[in-house]
Amino acid sequence: MPNLPRVVSREPLPHDEAKWTKLVKVTYEDADGKSRIWESAERTTRPPATAEQPDVVDGVDIVAIIRGTPGAPDSRIVLIKQFRPAVGRTVIELPAGLVDAGESVDEAAVRELREETGYVGRVSADTEASLSPSLTLYADPGFGNNNLQIVYVDVDGADARNLDGNRRLQLEEGELVQAVFTVPLTDLFVTCRRLANEGYAIDARVGTLAEGMEMAGRYLRLK
Amino acid sequence: MPNLPRVVSREPLPHDEAKWTKLVKVTYEDADGKSRIWESAERTTRPPATAEQPDVVDGVDIVAIIRGTPGAPDSRIVLIKQFRPAVGRTVIELPAGLVDAGESVDEAAVRELREETGYVGRVSADTEASLSPSLTLYADPGFGNNNLQIVYVDVDGADARNLDGNRRLQLEEGELVQAVFTVPLTDLFVTCRRLANEGYAIDARVGTLAEGMEMAGRYLRLK
Repeated sequence: MPNLPRVVSREPLPHDEAKWTKLVKVTYEDADGKSRIWESAERTTRPPATAEQPDVVDGVDIVAIIRGTPGAPDSRIVLIKQFRPAVGRTVIELPAGLVDAGESVDEAAVRELREETGYVGRVSADTEASLSPSLTLYADPGFGNNNLQIVYVDVDGADARNLDGNRRLQLEEGELVQAVFTVPLTDLFVTCRRLANEGYAIDARVGTLAEGMEMAGRYLRLK
Repeated sequence: MPNLPRVVSREPLPHDEAKWTKLVKVTYEDADGKSRIWESAERTTRPPATAEQPDVVDGVDIVAIIRGTPGAPDSRIVLIKQFRPAVGRTVIELPAGLVDAGESVDEAAVRELREETGYVGRVSADTEASLSPSLTLYADPGFGNNNLQIVYVDVDGADARNLDGNRRLQLEEGELVQAVFTVPLTDLFVTCRRLANEGYAIDARVGTLAEGMEMAGRYLRLK
């Protein structure tokens, strides 16, 4: 039986050993013209922005929805449990990944969903003003420039490829997905609270989507 | 008339100059017992976890709500425009800040809201199972251990201290809040899209709350 992953040690990472991360010294002028310094933590993997593509995106987070049916009316969202060494715990996350060079965010979303969860889906083509992709969102703009777009993917729960037992994960070396599971969207908020009580850490995208859905119920009633 | 802040240069930040950020080499064992390395970008400011407080939180994000009234039924959320050197642009954000040593997240939220926006509020005491504070959320767990809690703060729009002209910002050295504004919660999604079109960057908490509220309307209808 496999063990749970665990952190063995944490120590300073010398610059010349860092492959995926870097610290950047940003010199800027404030509104009074005064020169100031800001420290930024960044990925080394982002391609440079160009005139054609000024808004380069590091990664995608995937909201994969298995739509409800008359017999099972709740729409469900696909989540993963993944050990994250930086956090030292297993984190409840949306399927996600970095966008490969030359790949669109939509292509990256469908690819990563399949690799990380085994689910085959297609980018949601909502007939209303589309949710997908989201705006480019900055994960922690006081700390670094990392950004992402949320892509909504429809998963056909009746497609044979998506049935339990047929789904095959294709994890890359070092990816630590421990479990793939689905939650009714109506239960996302309480499920996050329960999983946190069980010792899981909660990713901010999952948690904030749950908060937003809960806010809609609580604050929009006066309308 | 003041200029807009602008980035002048970006260059590698040597380790020994970094005050607020650090790179950490995490050695861990995977489920097969194999030793592996992960790179983590972290804040230097987090106090160490203790047995009494294992879940130390870096910061708070504040959902400050001015509740609707019969004459103006839409509840409004308080947002800020802040220049972020790491992003090189002005970002639409929730009021936010780091939790001081010895301070609770609730205290930090009320303090930071007042300092960054001038609004005086109190932590929401929702009579239902409370939204506030949120779970501890990890901002970017594939990249680092930065985390936060969302605190909901009720702002009394009729309180004289909260009227335009009476609100006073108390910004710390280097804080670059350019504007404080409110948006009806029902318009948060479309407002983020409009502001992005105008060239603003969007913080992931703001954007994801908006996505969550929109998802509630689109995906929960089958219930």
